[in-house]
Amino acid sequence: MRRDPLSEDTLNEECGVFGIHGCQSAGQMSYYGLHALQHRGQESAGIAWINGEGNLQCHKGMGLVSETFSNERLETMEGPRAIGHVRYTTNGSSQLLNSQPLVFNYRGGTMALAHNGSLVNASQIKRYLERQGSIFQTTSDTEVIAHLIARSAYDELEYALQEALSMIKGAYALLILQGDTLMAALDPNGLRPLSLGRVNGAYLLASETCAFQAVGGEYLREVEPGELIIIDGSGMRSVRFAQQTARRICSFEYIYFARPDSDVWGINVHQARKRLGAMLAQEHPVEADVVTGVPDSSISAAIGYAETARIPYELGLIKNRYVGRTFIQPNQDLRAQGVRMKLSPVKRVVAGQRVVMIDDSIVRGTTMSRLVHMLREAGAVEVHVRISSPPVGYPCYYGIDTSSRDELIVSRKSLEEIQSFLGADSLSFLSVDGLLRALDRPQSSQNCGLCLACFNGEYPTEIYPDTVMAKEVH
Amino acid sequence: MRRDPLSEDTLNEECGVFGIHGCQSAGQMSYYGLHALQHRGQESAGIAWINGEGNLQCHKGMGLVSETFSNERLETMEGPRAIGHVRYTTNGSSQLLNSQPLVFNYRGGTMALAHNGSLVNASQIKRYLERQGSIFQTTSDTEVIAHLIARSAYDELEYALQEALSMIKGAYALLILQGDTLMAALDPNGLRPLSLGRVNGAYLLASETCAFQAVGGEYLREVEPGELIIIDGSGMRSVRFAQQTARRICSFEYIYFARPDSDVWGINVHQARKRLGAMLAQEHPVEADVVTGVPDSSISAAIGYAETARIPYELGLIKNRYVGRTFIQPNQDLRAQGVRMKLSPVKRVVAGQRVVMIDDSIVRGTTMSRLVHMLREAGAVEVHVRISSPPVGYPCYYGIDTSSRDELIVSRKSLEEIQSFLGADSLSFLSVDGLLRALDRPQSSQNCGLCLACFNGEYPTEIYPDTVMAKEVH
Amino acid sequence: MRRDPLSEDTLNEECGVFGIHGCQSAGQMSYYGLHALQHRGQESAGIAWINGEGNLQCHKGMGLVSETFSNERLETMEGPRAIGHVRYTTNGSSQLLNSQPLVFNYRGGTMALAHNGSLVNASQIKRYLERQGSIFQTTSDTEVIAHLIARSAYDELEYALQEALSMIKGAYALLILQGDTLMAALDPNGLRPLSLGRVNGAYLLASETCAFQAVGGEYLREVEPGELIIIDGSGMRSVRFAQQTARRICSFEYIYFARPDSDVWGINVHQARKRLGAMLAQEHPVEADVVTGVPDSSISAAIGYAETARIPYELGLIKNRYVGRTFIQPNQDLRAQGVRMKLSPVKRVVAGQRVVMIDDSIVRGTTMSRLVHMLREAGAVEVHVRISSPPVGYPCYYGIDTSSRDELIVSRKSLEEIQSFLGADSLSFLSVDGLLRALDRPQSSQNCGLCLACFNGEYPTEIYPDTVMAKEVH
Amino acid sequence: MRRDPLSEDTLNEECGVFGIHGCQSAGQMSYYGLHALQHRGQESAGIAWINGEGNLQCHKGMGLVSETFSNERLETMEGPRAIGHVRYTTNGSSQLLNSQPLVFNYRGGTMALAHNGSLVNASQIKRYLERQGSIFQTTSDTEVIAHLIARSAYDELEYALQEALSMIKGAYALLILQGDTLMAALDPNGLRPLSLGRVNGAYLLASETCAFQAVGGEYLREVEPGELIIIDGSGMRSVRFAQQTARRICSFEYIYFARPDSDVWGINVHQARKRLGAMLAQEHPVEADVVTGVPDSSISAAIGYAETARIPYELGLIKNRYVGRTFIQPNQDLRAQGVRMKLSPVKRVVAGQRVVMIDDSIVRGTTMSRLVHMLREAGAVEVHVRISSPPVGYPCYYGIDTSSRDELIVSRKSLEEIQSFLGADSLSFLSVDGLLRALDRPQSSQNCGLCLACFNGEYPTEIYPDTVMAKEVH
Repeated sequence: MRRDPLSEDTLNEECGVFGIHGCQSAGQMSYYGLHALQHRGQESAGIAWINGEGNLQCHKGMGLVSETFSNERLETMEGPRAIGHVRYTTNGSSQLLNSQPLVFNYRGGTMALAHNGSLVNASQIKRYLERQGSIFQTTSDTEVIAHLIARSAYDELEYALQEALSMIKGAYALLILQGDTLMAALDPNGLRPLSLGRVNGAYLLASETCAFQAVGGEYLREVEPGELIIIDGSGMRSVRFAQQTARRICSFEYIYFARPDSDVWGINVHQARKRLGAMLAQEHPVEADVVTGVPDSSISAAIGYAETARIPYELGLIKNRYVGRTFIQPNQDLRAQGVRMKLSPVKRVVAGQRVVMIDDSIVRGTTMSRLVHMLREAGAVEVHVRISSPPVGYPCYYGIDTSSRDELIVSRKSLEEIQSFLGADSLSFLSVDGLLRALDRPQSSQNCGLCLACFNGEYPTEIYPDTVMAKEVH
Repeated sequence: MRRDPLSEDTLNEECGVFGIHGCQSAGQMSYYGLHALQHRGQESAGIAWINGEGNLQCHKGMGLVSETFSNERLETMEGPRAIGHVRYTTNGSSQLLNSQPLVFNYRGGTMALAHNGSLVNASQIKRYLERQGSIFQTTSDTEVIAHLIARSAYDELEYALQEALSMIKGAYALLILQGDTLMAALDPNGLRPLSLGRVNGAYLLASETCAFQAVGGEYLREVEPGELIIIDGSGMRSVRFAQQTARRICSFEYIYFARPDSDVWGINVHQARKRLGAMLAQEHPVEADVVTGVPDSSISAAIGYAETARIPYELGLIKNRYVGRTFIQPNQDLRAQGVRMKLSPVKRVVAGQRVVMIDDSIVRGTTMSRLVHMLREAGAVEVHVRISSPPVGYPCYYGIDTSSRDELIVSRKSLEEIQSFLGADSLSFLSVDGLLRALDRPQSSQNCGLCLACFNGEYPTEIYPDTVMAKEVH
Repeated sequence: MRRDPLSEDTLNEECGVFGIHGCQSAGQMSYYGLHALQHRGQESAGIAWINGEGNLQCHKGMGLVSETFSNERLETMEGPRAIGHVRYTTNGSSQLLNSQPLVFNYRGGTMALAHNGSLVNASQIKRYLERQGSIFQTTSDTEVIAHLIARSAYDELEYALQEALSMIKGAYALLILQGDTLMAALDPNGLRPLSLGRVNGAYLLASETCAFQAVGGEYLREVEPGELIIIDGSGMRSVRFAQQTARRICSFEYIYFARPDSDVWGINVHQARKRLGAMLAQEHPVEADVVTGVPDSSISAAIGYAETARIPYELGLIKNRYVGRTFIQPNQDLRAQGVRMKLSPVKRVVAGQRVVMIDDSIVRGTTMSRLVHMLREAGAVEVHVRISSPPVGYPCYYGIDTSSRDELIVSRKSLEEIQSFLGADSLSFLSVDGLLRALDRPQSSQNCGLCLACFNGEYPTEIYPDTVMAKEVH
Repeated sequence: MRRDPLSEDTLNEECGVFGIHGCQSAGQMSYYGLHALQHRGQESAGIAWINGEGNLQCHKGMGLVSETFSNERLETMEGPRAIGHVRYTTNGSSQLLNSQPLVFNYRGGTMALAHNGSLVNASQIKRYLERQGSIFQTTSDTEVIAHLIARSAYDELEYALQEALSMIKGAYALLILQGDTLMAALDPNGLRPLSLGRVNGAYLLASETCAFQAVGGEYLREVEPGELIIIDGSGMRSVRFAQQTARRICSFEYIYFARPDSDVWGINVHQARKRLGAMLAQEHPVEADVVTGVPDSSISAAIGYAETARIPYELGLIKNRYVGRTFIQPNQDLRAQGVRMKLSPVKRVVAGQRVVMIDDSIVRGTTMSRLVHMLREAGAVEVHVRISSPPVGYPCYYGIDTSSRDELIVSRKSLEEIQSFLGADSLSFLSVDGLLRALDRPQSSQNCGLCLACFNGEYPTEIYPDTVMAKEVH
């Protein structure tokens, strides 16, 4: 399965999780919920559920949710509790091994874990556990958490899990299913999103609120940083396993990852993006005839920019929806076709026009440089690139697949060099201040509620030397 | 392969064709061209090409272009001339048999045909040919054309084809490849789109101009109704096989089928849709807070409506991009999930708002009724449905998969009944006059240049009783 | 799908056919019947049946019968009449197009044809038909027959078919299904096998009697050369469409093609092969310690040789049953592995022994040369090769995939040269006289009842120059 | 993937292992070696190898060796050391998870394990390890061994493994690959086969000697019970990890599992089976006309019986070689077809004859009863069933998939009742004494060198109550 040629030039979200407790169609509901979270990971999907006899079952596969679960399969997935996972993976022969939920047998029985995020001290703990005689079958941090639970001095999962959480550092939105209990834990910085909802009598947990809508449910509240939620036969309880710290959710949830119809910490993602675009227009206005956005993720920001700049918003680029799972490797002559297969300019919209092109971020810059070239070919007389986020100059250690620092165009080139590389008439990024203002956050990276590490290098947790070397993906 | 639950409630285009003459990578170029036409048909794809030894080869398969042609396959497809086809098919065990291009051996050698459209006298000719001893292996009109060519008194393909064309009636944009010759013919009413382009020294033919962009080519002109184009070693010639008649291209190319970045008869599709939306706003204004469109096809019209009505355009509905090839059949309780899996409202955008929802057409109305319901659930206080085309009250006999007359909601219910069925606060359709004005066409169905048959029942060709009974699909 | 490396060095049967009339499970019965005929062709399988509404349906696919027909598919195949086909095909992109049964619509309705054999005047008729305006979509002789039927002056299929049969020459065992009629025709020389049977009230037709056993049916008689059998609602009738000529069934049905449990013209195939082995022992005795056969086809002959020669029969070679559909292409160093993956010597059986190795035929000799080498490596002190058929020195024009004359080792080398090429201590072939004696046939190639053309070049039909050039495969 | 209907009525071997150290094509060689061991397990296949950079890689898949490893894959498998595994699995969603080799990261690095056999104290150790905090991701005993190694007080794999082996009981032929070391261990009773060989400079290890032939290698010796073999850069060493005990290889290796061309403990399997047949003829002679065997496994015994009884050996039953991977579920009327699809009688051989039918074993008896019925239908006047092994009356706890005791026909019915159930004219089993005599073993179950537990219930190791309850499959 060769990957989308454009995906190499974006940040890639790692995972989405979904859980449900107290509904007879828990397996089917998870299917719908995961489907709504599909944009967070397309390479593997899995659901673990407790069946009618109280046993934990699990089905996983490579590919989309709708490809992994057939109708026949879903019919066998009756039962009251389930957790699910969609995963964006890197290539490797062990792909299916690493797909989630992971299921472990241990002295307490059988448990399934679904994890979104990345630990910064996984290697240290792994080394420690190996010294104690642990074996590892995956390259997933999740297995580290399972070992800590299994080795805990506590017999009860609730306490064993808290002990484990006290040892791990980094980003995690974690769902655990065992017997009649569903647990959810969010790291003390709240780096990953995790929301709580309800449908009929059942409790829901999901990376994004769009999954609640997908199953006809309603949003209750966010899971708090450092909060452990325990749902069992006697209802839901909340336990605090870590001191309250400053919440620091990943900024890119607003900028790029989350679905426009989701709300993240009370802010609608589409509206947030519109405001990012509006703020970008205030910070970096330009004389132009049309505003256009790179579909799909930059459309909201483009609309916001256009409204504020009072320049007409137009569909200047069209995305081909039928991209399939594999791409041919074009020969040397047709190399430029790669981007054209996915995006095409609308000539009549851009010909003879001064175009503002909005994108949400720039990683390596290769795709953007081709888009600028395509717009010029289509007759644009000026192309002004506006990016609705600050420059990404630092790698992420919390589970986002940024390139290593060397590949980040921002860390290698000056703004002028990038503009020249892109072939643009002008290039501007939203400032960090603009980002915070647009999201209506305090102007302090300490208590703005956002993780800005990839912009300013201020990581909310410790970072260890070997974390920097080996970024593991979940 | 179960079909998209939403597709049942739209009009479905039948085919796209692509041809190229005079380029060493004709096979690869066709791959890119067909990929750009993928929206015109997703169920089978095929390319016939003349290889280096001058032999005609053909490869076809069920599924998307990118699934049908592997990298290995494309590498074997060297040669200077090719035609390709994407097809929307109905189900049936003979699917692959009917996929195109069709290849025939006859006394003149081997020829390949790719056809978009539908003949209205196919059954009559078929009956006649069978009486003469012809056998048919497909249910495709294309085989009828091949028989007529093979049985012609003329030995030369050029004349034999003209003789054949003089006998068939209906809609066709036809490409034929044989030896060193590529031919293209458009029916005398020009019911289907077919454009001529160039890339380097090669000639291009395609259902839509977006395919020219996809291969780095440029648009020359439309193929004229009743024109036969012959491209061979000595260049391109144009022959008229039918008297000039009033051009009558299918209106739905503008309304729904064509890609926004294509130009059809000189009019950009995205801009045409914006004007349809603008005209709709003039004809059917409404007090409201936001305008939203059903993605993706109604976005342009929604932007046009919003601009004219001076109501903010918003992303009120989000489309899930990861729909995969199969859909589960939800159980009774989860039936409503079908639409939700594909479209979700953005609550924060619509809650407490009076919403204008733009769609391009209504066939059965079931999907729209669910969307209205979803918007209300999401908190919309009013939902005003505006359709950017006139009511579809008559079946199409030229290759568009409308339901039979009984299934068309417009032919069964009054406007009030439909509005009530949809649960909308108001419902309006663009008028036929509005459609013509928006496209800047004369206000006469005779010389407006458009086929309006599905709106007013005035078919530009004869229609025979058995055409009405047996609508064949290509 | 790469082919079995050993199959290149054998003669390959082209097809098997099966038909049934008068049983409600005609589709399922055909499935079982074709499965029993699977050895006659493994690359495609198909069944055409008349369903409950009297319509002709067809399902075909590449691969084995059990791969082509799922349980779900079979359940939809209810109906009283069916014909089926298994095919050995040569490679090519049009594989599925050429798979059978072929279904044609013509003035008489819809008919399906299943054909085993090859016509020697197909090119001539094809050329003639093309001149009349016929088109051809396959490279199959069967389409020629369909055209002749469709163009016949007779309206009734029975007479139209007879007219067609009067024009074609060569080898054919032909089944035709139309409406309530099943017809079977065998060429005037009876070159291909075709037997008639019954099960409950239904009539059966099959290439081999083993298919009757497979459906619990019983053998009635052979279809006669030049006989047309017509089965419809009023029972079975027999018509003679050609003068009685000398029957000439392909000798290789006895030697190699047919399954050991089949009877061909009253002779059991296993027993025939034992007698071939016994005759070989009489003609070419040798001092040796063990007799072994190349599995599976030469086992019977080896047992016969052993009994007559009074040398113990042993399993000297073991065949790996798990060969799968694809073979890796071993690198240069491991080339010799190809044969070893399929056959291995039993060291303890052959070490220190003088071994007689029986094979049924030699085409190119490459496999046999590797087997001799393997036996020597395993310790055999002498290897005496005995072939239970005469040398194949002439190509077959009746549908057997012999190599061209240049590739036949017998036509390029003397017996001594072949023996030396094989590395054998001695080499002998059964004589043509021995073949006839073993099968208890008169010692005259004219009325022996067998086609011996590949041994002696005496073809029972005319052979035309362009038949020699273009051997088409069905 | 539905299973072979006949396989339910046989004993099924669980695994085959192959290892190679010191050859640049270790991956490819393992492919050929595993292919030769394919009869020991067809449901999954895997190879772990050390690549050029010294890293351990692993590729596994469901299905045959030739299906799991493509040519492209094999080309990437360069490197000097490898181990491989073929597995017979029971159904379950965790199939691929349990397929081998299993790969573990632990404090000593990365190791791969391939295991044939079954431990009798796996549950006890697992419970113990879970109490210590271990987690289990598979249901395989192999994971238990990996845990023991990882938790050992010893850092060096060689000593850690010995410590682990000192704790486990049961049957195991175990290969371990780590870094530059390949280790092989055989349980102290030698219940499973494991042989040592060489090819060029490289060492080979395989479940059967036929795998040595397959790669052009030669047999050196058996691995001894309780022996640990260590192969690394400085050559091969042998260590004894357990006291010499009486060797007790599974009798069914001779009777049914091993390939006829393999030698097991110096006895050729084909010849052993012939002697079993000969002994059976001495113990249970019968007046008859032909002797036939159930293909393929009983052919050798049938030949032996025939020779001793001086009754002609014949091919009375033919096996259909094209059985494919899936079977349709025949409807009620066609249920009897199941066996017929796989085996057919040769009427001419059995009609009017008194037939001796040799089979190697009877488990449930359902297949045999259908075969007897088929022979009678084909005209056999008497059918005498002779089984070339003693009655299987006790379950196996060492990795053979016998049915539970209740399903074993021998433990439910008397000999007369079985004969009557089969519908046979007579029925006899080889005696245990006859088995030992035929294999030239001492007449004492203590030092006969064979495990006879399934015949006499004398298990060579302790058996624990929960072993009896939960037979795990590897």
